[in-house]
Amino acid sequence: MRTVVRLDGRVPGPGFGFEIDGRLPGRLGRAGTMRTPHGEIRTPAFTPVGTKATVKAVLPGTMRELGAQVVLANAYHLYLQPGADIVEAGGGLAAFMGWDGPTITDSGGFQVLSLGVGFKKVLAMDASTVQADDVIAAGKDRLAHVDDDGVTFVSHLDGSRHRFSPEVSMQVQHQIGADIMFAFDECTTLLNTREYQEQSVSRTQAWAERCVTAHERLTVERAGRPYQALFGVVQGAQYEDLRRRSARGLAALPMDGYGIGGALEKDQLGTIVRWVCEELPEDRPRHLLGIGEPDDIFAAVESGADTFDCVAPSRNARNGTVFHPTKRFHLTNGRYRREFTPIDDACDCYTCATFTRAYLHHLFRAKEMLAATLATIHNERYIVRLVDQVRASILDGTFDELRAEVLGRSGRQSPTAP
Amino acid sequence: MRTVVRLDGRVPGPGFGFEIDGRLPGRLGRAGTMRTPHGEIRTPAFTPVGTKATVKAVLPGTMRELGAQVVLANAYHLYLQPGADIVEAGGGLAAFMGWDGPTITDSGGFQVLSLGVGFKKVLAMDASTVQADDVIAAGKDRLAHVDDDGVTFVSHLDGSRHRFSPEVSMQVQHQIGADIMFAFDECTTLLNTREYQEQSVSRTQAWAERCVTAHERLTVERAGRPYQALFGVVQGAQYEDLRRRSARGLAALPMDGYGIGGALEKDQLGTIVRWVCEELPEDRPRHLLGIGEPDDIFAAVESGADTFDCVAPSRNARNGTVFHPTKRFHLTNGRYRREFTPIDDACDCYTCATFTRAYLHHLFRAKEMLAATLATIHNERYIVRLVDQVRASILDGTFDELRAEVLGRSGRQSPTAP
Repeated sequence: MRTVVRLDGRVPGPGFGFEIDGRLPGRLGRAGTMRTPHGEIRTPAFTPVGTKATVKAVLPGTMRELGAQVVLANAYHLYLQPGADIVEAGGGLAAFMGWDGPTITDSGGFQVLSLGVGFKKVLAMDASTVQADDVIAAGKDRLAHVDDDGVTFVSHLDGSRHRFSPEVSMQVQHQIGADIMFAFDECTTLLNTREYQEQSVSRTQAWAERCVTAHERLTVERAGRPYQALFGVVQGAQYEDLRRRSARGLAALPMDGYGIGGALEKDQLGTIVRWVCEELPEDRPRHLLGIGEPDDIFAAVESGADTFDCVAPSRNARNGTVFHPTKRFHLTNGRYRREFTPIDDACDCYTCATFTRAYLHHLFRAKEMLAATLATIHNERYIVRLVDQVRASILDGTFDELRAEVLGRSGRQSPTAP
Repeated sequence: MRTVVRLDGRVPGPGFGFEIDGRLPGRLGRAGTMRTPHGEIRTPAFTPVGTKATVKAVLPGTMRELGAQVVLANAYHLYLQPGADIVEAGGGLAAFMGWDGPTITDSGGFQVLSLGVGFKKVLAMDASTVQADDVIAAGKDRLAHVDDDGVTFVSHLDGSRHRFSPEVSMQVQHQIGADIMFAFDECTTLLNTREYQEQSVSRTQAWAERCVTAHERLTVERAGRPYQALFGVVQGAQYEDLRRRSARGLAALPMDGYGIGGALEKDQLGTIVRWVCEELPEDRPRHLLGIGEPDDIFAAVESGADTFDCVAPSRNARNGTVFHPTKRFHLTNGRYRREFTPIDDACDCYTCATFTRAYLHHLFRAKEMLAATLATIHNERYIVRLVDQVRASILDGTFDELRAEVLGRSGRQSPTAP
């Protein structure tokens, strides 16, 4: 049995590490290698999302073949279904889902706070004026209530009542067993008041400290298992002082890495990531939560983000929208009925190597499940390859040229480097 | 440009052939090799169904990996969606669907006559008393009307009116371009009167003759394309004299092979196949339409059938029912929530090699698309492998032992050889 001893706030756990392989001159961006018990991740890296322990419609072996290095699942969803105990008994997330590589779990904070139809109401309400049982009484309109100790919420599946706290989230995430876990945070929106954002940043900091304590206890209690890394999540919305305060507060904790969460205005994304990364220790990886658009990826990488996850490639795919260097398009459109060319001539994915737009159009029109599978393979490959190219461009000094080329051909303006 | 000359009624077309590799002593059963322009089929062989040019939920490459040799699609469905012209422009069925191997199309006769909710009413009615427009006027209740020249039907997709005749079916199937086509036949049920069955067998014979003429014309007109084989379909329901008459009639035509169609009582299946195969030329392959249960496969093979198709493996899979040597079971049942074993320990499929019942249970409960994919891979592999074993058992003289073992362990009585 291996005993885990955490020496101080700057030493990652055994089995986890991060090294910088190259840098963007004059900026915070870098290429690196993250080491996890289930394998390495070359960064920058895009992380496909497999919310319920499956990247929707695609075999895990196929995800590997298309170049995915790591998959992100969601602690909230897995806690409710099938239950964290089941995932644990199945050997942990990677073994349970047949994924031969590193995994990440989101803490559930974002999902708890964006539950179903209650999304806007929950996030807009001032928690201080809400009684503990209001969330239950209000039924579908409000499915979650935040207090300083945690969040009470109603399952979107069966209406059952649950309670997440930093300790519960750590327990659940240790059971799920991903290589990288996120601290339980409160995810606010741009609609919250400045005053609420301040309180929330303090709360997220307090929760992160409790997560560290719970994580250290669980790591010792569960010694002998592969070490799970803990990432603290920086919040603070659009406010520079709050973002920096949040980052500094988390930087002082023994985190293995960091997440950058919360709502962001698109045109502020690079700036906010830069504020945060200026405060974070340089030797720890940084994951930008919920980002996957090409222009956002360039802005985030330039400002110091290492990894990203986003449901957009697969969600778009299931709706028939496929990525393309110059334009996205919708395969169900009648114009593709007779187009016997791949989605993208230059793409090296299985879908583009094997099938025409006309065939994919037919599958979508016929409501065949394979439509979602094939479009997802293409979109995931598209983003994974793009981020691989971004990594290569950092290493060979062509980042700005790549950005100009990629964003130029898609008609998006390439923002000037700060 | 290659000119196809058909010398007589016994010479298969160029690019198509059938050789017998071994026999069941004293019975009609045999193992063989069918040669098609897209590759060989070792028989007996199970043919997975890809109705709309896709085996639902499974990549064609995965179907190849699990041992599928040939896929059957449906001319009726492809005619309506995306249209036979689209499949043709896409390079024909195999190229269009990304399947690197032989394909078969069913003629559409069965589908036209079993349309949607009208199934029972259409098949039970006496065609001689029905006016041509009744089928339209009756709306959903009656979607197809048979006359001596063909079938008028209403699309199950959009209510549009269509007409299939032997000539139309051949035209459509030539455009779709499968290696093996079936003649357009009338598929009756056990509910039809003896008198109607007699008329129907005569009609199917007349239609088969028209199919041959149309096929020969199209083969010449479309010279330069890979030769498509034509199989006549034997009908005659449960009547020995009608089955033999139908088989003899078709045997006199220049068919490359034969289908055995129509409704069958399960316990009569082997007997009916035997009647038919006693009349058919021995050097042509015989495909039993719509059969896929293990006990039926043994009975059919013993009586002379070479290939089979059935939607059961994939349809069952999508409903969560998986095949197993001793029992079928339903993965959504709560008892599988914590079963961390494969569906079948002895199975060599990707699903059983990679995933537990508990994980599959989770995917079904969570309504994840991958559930259907993984269950289909298992079920198709199960039947493909079983039929491969049947072939091997014919070649090494252990057919009866294999049947006793397979049917014995599943609790089905192994029928005595005739």
